[in-house]
Amino acid sequence: MNPRHLDSSEWFTELADEAGLAMSLRHRGRLHSEQSPYQKIEVYDTEGFGHLMVIDGYVMLSERDNFVYHEMLSHPVLLTHPRPRRVVIIGGGDCGTLREVLKHPEVTQVTQVDIDERVTRVAERFFPELCESNHDPRAELLFEDGVAWMAAAADESADVVIVDSTDPVGPGEGLFNESFYRECRRVLGAEGLLVQQSESPLIHLDLIQAMRAAMSAAGFGCLHTLQFPQPVYPSGWWSATMARARGPWPEFRAGDARKLRTRYYSAAVHQGALAMPPFFGAATGQSDEGSAHS
Amino acid sequence: MNPRHLDSSEWFTELADEAGLAMSLRHRGRLHSEQSPYQKIEVYDTEGFGHLMVIDGYVMLSERDNFVYHEMLSHPVLLTHPRPRRVVIIGGGDCGTLREVLKHPEVTQVTQVDIDERVTRVAERFFPELCESNHDPRAELLFEDGVAWMAAAADESADVVIVDSTDPVGPGEGLFNESFYRECRRVLGAEGLLVQQSESPLIHLDLIQAMRAAMSAAGFGCLHTLQFPQPVYPSGWWSATMARARGPWPEFRAGDARKLRTRYYSAAVHQGALAMPPFFGAATGQSDEGSAHS
Repeated sequence: MNPRHLDSSEWFTELADEAGLAMSLRHRGRLHSEQSPYQKIEVYDTEGFGHLMVIDGYVMLSERDNFVYHEMLSHPVLLTHPRPRRVVIIGGGDCGTLREVLKHPEVTQVTQVDIDERVTRVAERFFPELCESNHDPRAELLFEDGVAWMAAAADESADVVIVDSTDPVGPGEGLFNESFYRECRRVLGAEGLLVQQSESPLIHLDLIQAMRAAMSAAGFGCLHTLQFPQPVYPSGWWSATMARARGPWPEFRAGDARKLRTRYYSAAVHQGALAMPPFFGAATGQSDEGSAHS
Repeated sequence: MNPRHLDSSEWFTELADEAGLAMSLRHRGRLHSEQSPYQKIEVYDTEGFGHLMVIDGYVMLSERDNFVYHEMLSHPVLLTHPRPRRVVIIGGGDCGTLREVLKHPEVTQVTQVDIDERVTRVAERFFPELCESNHDPRAELLFEDGVAWMAAAADESADVVIVDSTDPVGPGEGLFNESFYRECRRVLGAEGLLVQQSESPLIHLDLIQAMRAAMSAAGFGCLHTLQFPQPVYPSGWWSATMARARGPWPEFRAGDARKLRTRYYSAAVHQGALAMPPFFGAATGQSDEGSAHS
């Protein structure tokens, strides 16, 4: 029936104002709410998607569907690098990306830099499955400003940088610009790979174009955006953008991909996610022929 | 900010009750509303997604994103058939699928069977771009019950059947069961292909399992579900299921795929869409190795 009122005592609603779109999840109650030094962190107990973490009114993740996002932010970039040993995660305080990164035996060291320790503490309580690898001896969790951390990091000290940030408003804003990407480029050297979540290919195409332009200007000459579904994010259609100093892309390690235990990612899904639609290619110049690896 | 009220005079909201999920589109007004002999048909003028057609409270299509659905329902199945000449569309009253089918020069005859003529008349008025091929001499538009039409059709009289129906409630319900699929199987013969929209891989997995079981029981021994984004449908993550009497699947005609003018579909996107995630394979038995064609 329609139009409907959604009672705000039963529904959490996120507006994607720029697209005139809203997504709502019915819940049994709010389990947690706090104002950290940086942002407002809430957890809802939803009926259909399990626990839901919300920061400053924006959905961060749900228990039911975060596996898609975390797997697709981690595995494609790690399996595209021929030998990823030193990994840096900027943001990622819920620790879901960290867990996926630590599934890779080649990785010897992961430094996670999230400005807000409270996000991790709340995740430990309400999303314990995402935090199960936090005490892996290869992992180091820092609670600092990611932009400052990157500016202070040594040249060529990382093989892969994963930017697992909030949207480009609030604390995440400094992670979407040329000066930050220039530091990433220096820290990664000629062979390292960057990946960042890059919003919706349909409703945020302008943002993706700006982000790719800033990455290019910062010295990343070779970019590839990949797509995946993410039901709790606006439009349900999301992306990540990988960057490298120059082409060609190395072949991704499909044999190693088959050894991972995953729910969304597979070697075939990886190859498939690289195939962006023609309208996206027309807007960005990225080939629609599907492979970052040819 | 949250939680919010959505003022129902400004928002159209669809509930996916089974998933505790709702999707809302802000609009400037309702342009049309009628009760046809079969269902309630409405059109809203949305801010972000253009014209929106709603049937019995469920979103059918928006101007902005229907290209994904219509291209992915049509082109993969047509390019998988080696020589599709005679095509039947069951449902599809908005004519968007028909337009895509008529892009294929091999097709000599398309019979569209939608029970409700009013859907087509409303589409002609509010979605004229979808109806631009309705007068192609190869197209025949019938306004009849699709189940009865299929039961009366001659053996082996179609190469491809596309079931472009509403959800399995209301008038569309009879299109999701074994007796209907058995008639499709007879009309298609040993070499013909069936495709049907098959809901969300995340929130309707039980429905997809039931649909695949009914197709198998009806004599379709070879099934392949493919995925694509569809922002205005619940979860934003949608699927279509292709069926054939027996395997192996023919190679799809990638060379012909490259000749089509499309916005979402491409040969690479086609191959990518066949790669379903491991959780889907575990639930259905479909290989996660990506190819219906190996």
